[in-house]
Amino acid sequence: MMTTTAIQHDSIIGKEQLLKHWQGHRALTRRVIEAFPEKELFEFSVAGMRPFSDLAIELLSIGGPALKAIVDRAATPYSEEGITPKTKAELLKLWDAETETINNYFGRIPHEDFSETFNLFGQYAFPIYQNILYFVDNEIHHRGQGYVYLRALGIQPPFFWER
Amino acid sequence: MMTTTAIQHDSIIGKEQLLKHWQGHRALTRRVIEAFPEKELFEFSVAGMRPFSDLAIELLSIGGPALKAIVDRAATPYSEEGITPKTKAELLKLWDAETETINNYFGRIPHEDFSETFNLFGQYAFPIYQNILYFVDNEIHHRGQGYVYLRALGIQPPFFWER
Repeated sequence: MMTTTAIQHDSIIGKEQLLKHWQGHRALTRRVIEAFPEKELFEFSVAGMRPFSDLAIELLSIGGPALKAIVDRAATPYSEEGITPKTKAELLKLWDAETETINNYFGRIPHEDFSETFNLFGQYAFPIYQNILYFVDNEIHHRGQGYVYLRALGIQPPFFWER
Repeated sequence: MMTTTAIQHDSIIGKEQLLKHWQGHRALTRRVIEAFPEKELFEFSVAGMRPFSDLAIELLSIGGPALKAIVDRAATPYSEEGITPKTKAELLKLWDAETETINNYFGRIPHEDFSETFNLFGQYAFPIYQNILYFVDNEIHHRGQGYVYLRALGIQPPFFWER
């Protein structure tokens, strides 16, 4: 892991580019949520893993809350409390609200802060840009699992390159 | 998709940081390959999907060949030809060789070129930094599927945050 605290001289990816990259992935994850039948979204999984609704709740408990903690430099612990959608429509509504939350808080991180180390959730001390890449990676990882669930249900998942 | 061709003034991720990010993911994918039993690596899958060896062959057909094409600005089409490991040891050997290939060719891309549009495999015209993020995303996506295969086999996958 890199722990540099200075802006890199060889920078190749910008702040707005990273946000668009993330929101593009979130748009695809939204399509995966939509692709699940109502019941299977909350109940189906493979190999005893969590259903896709639980994976989406994890993602909702990271993105917005983590960015808010970064902006406030708050050691707020990770929590899924209060994120309890009971229907696909409720989950999608939370998803869309978090899209705005992410845009808002991301915009409030000065670009020179992205290489600063922040102890996310009081336990993950990494440069802010790495924390955010981790949110995206974690989303792709769980969504890839959702693709297997959809295949196991005989449902064609959305194209991976659609954002 | 962004199509800017100028270096961003708000850059937050450097060239070496992106390479370390990618190679960190490749190290984790290597551990996932290792976690499969020999036979299941080549034969097991869930829901009629490709076995994990085939997913790894796809990744090997992208990373090194794509970077070489970027450096040479060559419209080489995507191909899995000639990448035919028959054992886990052979696959890991190809994986490790590609680690060096990636380091080598990545290093030869001038940092100011990452925002230039390149028509990868003669069909994906995006800025080079987006092409490379796509390689990483695609790897995380397929590896997430490999995690489901391992769970279905009753095998504990490596920790996602180990790189």
